[in-house]
Amino acid sequence: SSEFRLAVVQLQVTSVKADNLSRARRLVKEAAGQGGQVVLLPECFNSPYGTNFFPSYAERIPGESSQMLSEAAKENKDPSLKRTVGSCITACTVFGPDGQLILKHRKIHLFDIDVPGKIRFQESETLSPGNSLSVFETRCQLLVYPGAFNMTTGPAHWELLQRGRALDNQVYVATASPARDETASYVAWGHSTVVNPWGEVISKAGPEEAVIYADIDLQYLADIRQQIPITAQRRNDIYAVTSTQEGSR
Amino acid sequence: SSEFRLAVVQLQVTSVKADNLSRARRLVKEAAGQGGQVVLLPECFNSPYGTNFFPSYAERIPGESSQMLSEAAKENKDPSLKRTVGSCITACTVFGPDGQLILKHRKIHLFDIDVPGKIRFQESETLSPGNSLSVFETRCQLLVYPGAFNMTTGPAHWELLQRGRALDNQVYVATASPARDETASYVAWGHSTVVNPWGEVISKAGPEEAVIYADIDLQYLADIRQQIPITAQRRNDIYAVTSTQEGSR
Repeated sequence: SSEFRLAVVQLQVTSVKADNLSRARRLVKEAAGQGGQVVLLPECFNSPYGTNFFPSYAERIPGESSQMLSEAAKENKDPSLKRTVGSCITACTVFGPDGQLILKHRKIHLFDIDVPGKIRFQESETLSPGNSLSVFETRCQLLVYPGAFNMTTGPAHWELLQRGRALDNQVYVATASPARDETASYVAWGHSTVVNPWGEVISKAGPEEAVIYADIDLQYLADIRQQIPITAQRRNDIYAVTSTQEGSR
Repeated sequence: SSEFRLAVVQLQVTSVKADNLSRARRLVKEAAGQGGQVVLLPECFNSPYGTNFFPSYAERIPGESSQMLSEAAKENKDPSLKRTVGSCITACTVFGPDGQLILKHRKIHLFDIDVPGKIRFQESETLSPGNSLSVFETRCQLLVYPGAFNMTTGPAHWELLQRGRALDNQVYVATASPARDETASYVAWGHSTVVNPWGEVISKAGPEEAVIYADIDLQYLADIRQQIPITAQRRNDIYAVTSTQEGSR
């Protein structure tokens, strides 16, 4: 089949890690029960977002959070769960139906912001980035971004960036945000979203905890790519995006 | 001063070339009289959009259309006009206040579309693209796109692409469309727009002929780049966009 069902879990994250993990596990189960074949969890689903929290919530992989994700993938494989994607601080992991770790992607672009009177946050002060790209195939069909935008960038940029990436690359784009917690030091925007390759929002949560679903239709994506064949007009004779990693050339 | 005034002329284009040229000249004058220091004209401001029209409306540069632009730039230099930008089929020209041709950019990405039951248009069947980039400086502050979107891509993609490019690159983006003509074979979307580097629409025309204005504030742009320093997080150690043109490396 060229279709599969994506579920995005917009988790309510608290300062109690054990609660975050058990709640995430329960919602992955709920999503799988509703037919979700790929389940996406938010950035920092196991920790409040904040550089002061990261040292005490950070884990190695394997660790208790990745262990939970592995078990959640395994225990839900019967209802056809294919993938569970979870993001813990700066590593995003993908687990297959037998609980195996398929991929570990470390965030390569840290986020710094300083808008006077609104928000200041410098990931680069406490985090170190990953140094490699995680690419499965040459032309991606679904981009997933676990992300915690804030009350300044959220209303201005969250949806725009997703719709832009979807249209530019003719891909589905899915984002998973933590649910909004007005009492947190860093207030997440929420509004987890799925966008189709025409740039249209096809599923969107509000600010509160929720699981949203979207049917991903790869035939529709193939049709769009045929209707507006942007890659046929690419000018690799004029410019190119290349990998500059050591040993990859 | 770090500010200047941009004017976008959303011209009503007809099949009479002389009318298009005289109307454009009058509106450039009007725009300059309103303080416009850079005046932008639409894609195909001198010709209806359609591959069947292009052979008979196409001109060499210099030619009557570029001559008009040069004269329009020159005759309006007193009210501080700095630049007139006009796009004729596949070449976009920029004229300075003394009427000199500063730049000629030829479209490098041709546009093909075939959405069944909606629109089919293949620039690649009749046009040949340019083969070089036109770059003034290393980090651009204003991107201008003379463009004629249609009634299928217009409502879906026109504003999204502009806001996306503005935010991604932290630049001002301005687009100039022909005014909508429901009787034309290719119906232009209109809605010429100016977007600021935060991704917000700051000026926008309706479908009909209009001149719109926007004050471009390069200090505001510099502030945004400092507030969210995305280039500081670029990973040139992992990837790079490079020119692959002969002799440019």
